[in-house]
Amino acid sequence: MTNAAAVDADGPLALICGGGVLPFAVAESVSRRGRAVVVFALRGHADADLVARFPHHWLRVGQLGAFDRLAKAAGCRDVVFIGALVRPTLWALRPDFAALMSLPRIINAYRGGDDHLLSGVSRIFEDRGFRLLGAHEVAPEILVPEGALGRVKAEDKQWDDIRFGLDYLHAAGPFDVGQAVVVADRRVLAVEAAEGTDQMLARVAKLHADGRIGISAGVGVLVKGPKPSQDRRFDLPSIGPNTVAGVMRAKLAGIAVVAGETVMADVERMVSEADRAGIFIVGAPPGSRK
Amino acid sequence: MTNAAAVDADGPLALICGGGVLPFAVAESVSRRGRAVVVFALRGHADADLVARFPHHWLRVGQLGAFDRLAKAAGCRDVVFIGALVRPTLWALRPDFAALMSLPRIINAYRGGDDHLLSGVSRIFEDRGFRLLGAHEVAPEILVPEGALGRVKAEDKQWDDIRFGLDYLHAAGPFDVGQAVVVADRRVLAVEAAEGTDQMLARVAKLHADGRIGISAGVGVLVKGPKPSQDRRFDLPSIGPNTVAGVMRAKLAGIAVVAGETVMADVERMVSEADRAGIFIVGAPPGSRK
Repeated sequence: MTNAAAVDADGPLALICGGGVLPFAVAESVSRRGRAVVVFALRGHADADLVARFPHHWLRVGQLGAFDRLAKAAGCRDVVFIGALVRPTLWALRPDFAALMSLPRIINAYRGGDDHLLSGVSRIFEDRGFRLLGAHEVAPEILVPEGALGRVKAEDKQWDDIRFGLDYLHAAGPFDVGQAVVVADRRVLAVEAAEGTDQMLARVAKLHADGRIGISAGVGVLVKGPKPSQDRRFDLPSIGPNTVAGVMRAKLAGIAVVAGETVMADVERMVSEADRAGIFIVGAPPGSRK
Repeated sequence: MTNAAAVDADGPLALICGGGVLPFAVAESVSRRGRAVVVFALRGHADADLVARFPHHWLRVGQLGAFDRLAKAAGCRDVVFIGALVRPTLWALRPDFAALMSLPRIINAYRGGDDHLLSGVSRIFEDRGFRLLGAHEVAPEILVPEGALGRVKAEDKQWDDIRFGLDYLHAAGPFDVGQAVVVADRRVLAVEAAEGTDQMLARVAKLHADGRIGISAGVGVLVKGPKPSQDRRFDLPSIGPNTVAGVMRAKLAGIAVVAGETVMADVERMVSEADRAGIFIVGAPPGSRK
């Protein structure tokens, strides 16, 4: 009997899967490379239709013991954690026994920003013998490359805004604030914190609609970049077709991310929709801060 | 015939008046000190009922020439500019002749954040022989003092969040981002940019309602402070009863501002409503950053 572990020297990959389409872009990429994938789908987060395409188990966020047992039974040592995950209240965690044993560490991790939470969670997995990898390490083609992804290029004035935004993200990094900012004519229109990129873009769309910002449509850039201290194994900034839709509604000129440090989902659809809307998507060289 | 200019050696004060109640707190304070006030109410912004209590003229934002003529006819040399003012589009300005002559400077001022815009506007007034003063210079009692304003005090854990918030505002200052941030357990929940404090608080209320932040009600602080480079004559951070209402809806523990660098409107109502809600309002010593 061939079990999944035999497919690859490293054994199958355990993919802990939150919301959105990105986890499945990773799962497909890893499968194409010939490595088996076992999806651990998080209830209330992962998309059931997409999960069904892969060998999978459903788990609640707090079921650390169940994950440990199922992943080891499947021969998984490497773990990738990917997808949108609303930070659950400690109360909603309903930890199983193994998670309960880690509870002091979890509670400690909860005091502070996302980076702090994620590095705490990462230690919990490593203590149990797993190796936590970044999605980009197992599926490098999901990383945004340098330069323009589609037909539309960023102009010099827009590069001014992009550098301004990257500089801001760098300065705000030690405070573990969000990964994105909207800059128009060197003015910060919106900063992402707990609400996420999509809601921040919706806010800019509303500011436009209410005449609250004296800026023409088609001016301004969404700039995303990882926080300096961010654990890239966990949480790289991501873009996809919904980012393009949000940027269109916010009446911005384009999207800039840090090349090699941002992942993308559904890239063909994203680029064709951006081209059609006249929106640029650029991967800025990692050194492009002033 | 006694004209207004004779009341005080400096002549009457020209108060250019945007939205909200703060302009009238200043006007009343200045009047009580025996100095005449002429209100220049901005159409679409200033509250007509409150404006009617003072000698006044109505102006559009772009009517620089009309302001110049009316203010000089009233014997005003000192100008205070106060109240909420949605940044109008250049198009909506409909500049009069005098403003048209200043248009290159105005257009230049529009490229960049609020500080940049305000310092440009300030030079325009000074070129015409006016002296621009801060509201706190003519009405010092509107400044928030050090310590707790009401019965509720901030606890040590809350002071941690307050210092964290002030440090963030300091780091973000060079980027001319907004004046406020919401911090809970050393985690930044929301950052204010173009949307203003009230909308930022509404966002935190919604994050709570949607279960998007794993934080109990009654945890977290609204921290406001002037940007390091901010022209304090123009635009000090302000709080009032609506800030308390917003903080209540956002389920935060309290409000912290920088003492001596924040103005308050309707202080008695604000403090009594905060006391009733169990919300603290503290003026942090200006040196309380880490």
